[in-house]
Amino acid sequence: MTLCELLGIRLPVIQAPMAGVQAGALALAVSRAGGLGSLPCAMLAPAAQREAVAALQAATTRPVNINFFCHRPPAPDDAAEQAWRARLAPFYRELGLDPSAMPAGGGRQPFDAAAAEMIEACRPRVVSFHFGLPEPGLLARVKATGARVMSSATTVAEARWLRDHGADLIIAQGLEAGGHRGHFLSPDLSLQAGTLALVPQIVRAVDRPVIAAGGIADAAGVAAAFALGAAGVQVGTAFLLCPEATTSAVHRQALREAPARGTALTTLFTGRPARGLMNRLMRELGPLDPAAPAFPTASTAIGPLRAAAEAAGSPEFSPLWAGQNTSGCREAPAAEVLAELACGVPPALLGAPA
Amino acid sequence: MTLCELLGIRLPVIQAPMAGVQAGALALAVSRAGGLGSLPCAMLAPAAQREAVAALQAATTRPVNINFFCHRPPAPDDAAEQAWRARLAPFYRELGLDPSAMPAGGGRQPFDAAAAEMIEACRPRVVSFHFGLPEPGLLARVKATGARVMSSATTVAEARWLRDHGADLIIAQGLEAGGHRGHFLSPDLSLQAGTLALVPQIVRAVDRPVIAAGGIADAAGVAAAFALGAAGVQVGTAFLLCPEATTSAVHRQALREAPARGTALTTLFTGRPARGLMNRLMRELGPLDPAAPAFPTASTAIGPLRAAAEAAGSPEFSPLWAGQNTSGCREAPAAEVLAELACGVPPALLGAPA
Repeated sequence: MTLCELLGIRLPVIQAPMAGVQAGALALAVSRAGGLGSLPCAMLAPAAQREAVAALQAATTRPVNINFFCHRPPAPDDAAEQAWRARLAPFYRELGLDPSAMPAGGGRQPFDAAAAEMIEACRPRVVSFHFGLPEPGLLARVKATGARVMSSATTVAEARWLRDHGADLIIAQGLEAGGHRGHFLSPDLSLQAGTLALVPQIVRAVDRPVIAAGGIADAAGVAAAFALGAAGVQVGTAFLLCPEATTSAVHRQALREAPARGTALTTLFTGRPARGLMNRLMRELGPLDPAAPAFPTASTAIGPLRAAAEAAGSPEFSPLWAGQNTSGCREAPAAEVLAELACGVPPALLGAPA
Repeated sequence: MTLCELLGIRLPVIQAPMAGVQAGALALAVSRAGGLGSLPCAMLAPAAQREAVAALQAATTRPVNINFFCHRPPAPDDAAEQAWRARLAPFYRELGLDPSAMPAGGGRQPFDAAAAEMIEACRPRVVSFHFGLPEPGLLARVKATGARVMSSATTVAEARWLRDHGADLIIAQGLEAGGHRGHFLSPDLSLQAGTLALVPQIVRAVDRPVIAAGGIADAAGVAAAFALGAAGVQVGTAFLLCPEATTSAVHRQALREAPARGTALTTLFTGRPARGLMNRLMRELGPLDPAAPAFPTASTAIGPLRAAAEAAGSPEFSPLWAGQNTSGCREAPAAEVLAELACGVPPALLGAPA
């Protein structure tokens, strides 16, 4: 069974869920054009999640992917929080903000019972998770709806774990990928590899369809992923300049300067390593500053800095999520970007026209 | 013109030159089997270079690649050397070595007039350089022999520079690759990308044959590289367990444990970032310790530590060069490893049988 048959889509290209830079419009455009659009729910409250999914499903009967984080929120750690605030205080003062008014606390919510209830009500074709899988009871509820379940593996060991714990499809997330690393077994980044190294090893290790993600930005990259044995590809960065994305103005500008900026994995913006374009905060604190507190608490104190800098037109305190290959970014409708990527799909793996 | 036609080989697979873990035997085995074997000269004195090349050429009339580093040796820096010695002193004491007897000074020699003279005498089919290209006068002497000149690019900007300065073929070295990064325009690792992201961008940017390197360990990886537009591939890690390699016993053992060790880029062993399997020195100093002095001077003081640890069967103070994809390492003759890789070459790109 091809990925297109399995998911009911025409093009085996998944638009990567990208919390913070897209909502339903991008997912809708991709699903309407024959790919699999994805709606990220990690930064939405339960009511907003339900509303966003319902709006997307009202707009199209094509399959969509609803995406959640499934981290375990950390125990409060006052010492870590204080150390982080001390690290950020000089930047607060420089930007005219009051360090004593620095917010604290959480941010992104993991998949929970309310989300499971929403999935039971909305019954999307695909549900994907980042950072592993939810606890077995919640996952069983998702699977009972008939949704196909996907999650990301950054190592062969994680791919095997996902297969053993109920994932129907496995995203092999190479180091090139933008945004959060999906690792959940070990935080050791030295165990992770680039897409070209990772995909064939996971294909050999698990008898599940493998989706290649990371560094794929054009038809040649798509063709290479299929040569590696992938059943499909997941692409995020190439959609960041599309009008359907909600990418901020400073983020869009930074993407245009991407070859000079470069990218790095950074924990500064959320507490978990995620790939973004380099900026001043990453340079000055070091992108993997050990002072950044546990995910997702690092993000809260960054918020006011980011807002103040962006108001002044500066991307230097914002998470500028992007993968290593920004060469596919085009200010063009998502359907055009998708059509270009799809030229790399082996014809035998295309789905039936809708 | 295909790469095989250009270089007179049957299989468009180049065995990566790997100073320290191979000499002529590996190059000979690969060239005899139809690929392009490579002889690394960076750690050989001029007389030894000439002897090694002559021996290789006496053993085969097939094309071979003779490889050199072309760094600029750094000015002596006593303060940096002292700081480095202080960092290493506790390890010296732990291993029963005398820190006051720590050696100092250089190591690897760059391509020079003596090497150019040797190339003029031996006339190899291919000469490759790492860290850019030699100064124009020396490069002109190499090109005047008719040798095809290759060098590594880690960014699109470096690929353009190499094209503009006389390289006939460009190796697109993705971040997955083992051993030294070949960068020469900027030391900023954040500008570098994985193979899948890098190759198509370089293929588009320069009208030269592009060799994909980094993370390629099996036929699927080879096929993917050609899908990305490469004219050939360069593979190193997959040959490390071959009997023809001189890989040390501790290095071989570490390669068998590779999935658990992981890899990282480290400056500890030479002063330049190079990818190797993680070990204790990398963990305890941090793999990119700013105290490591400029290439190649860091290596000298490491030597006794490494020798003492290896004598005790420990890989924890040795450079364990390896790429991110060790899944292709097999204790099999190089010709077998090569034949397996070559299954991924599109038939139209194979050369004529010898």
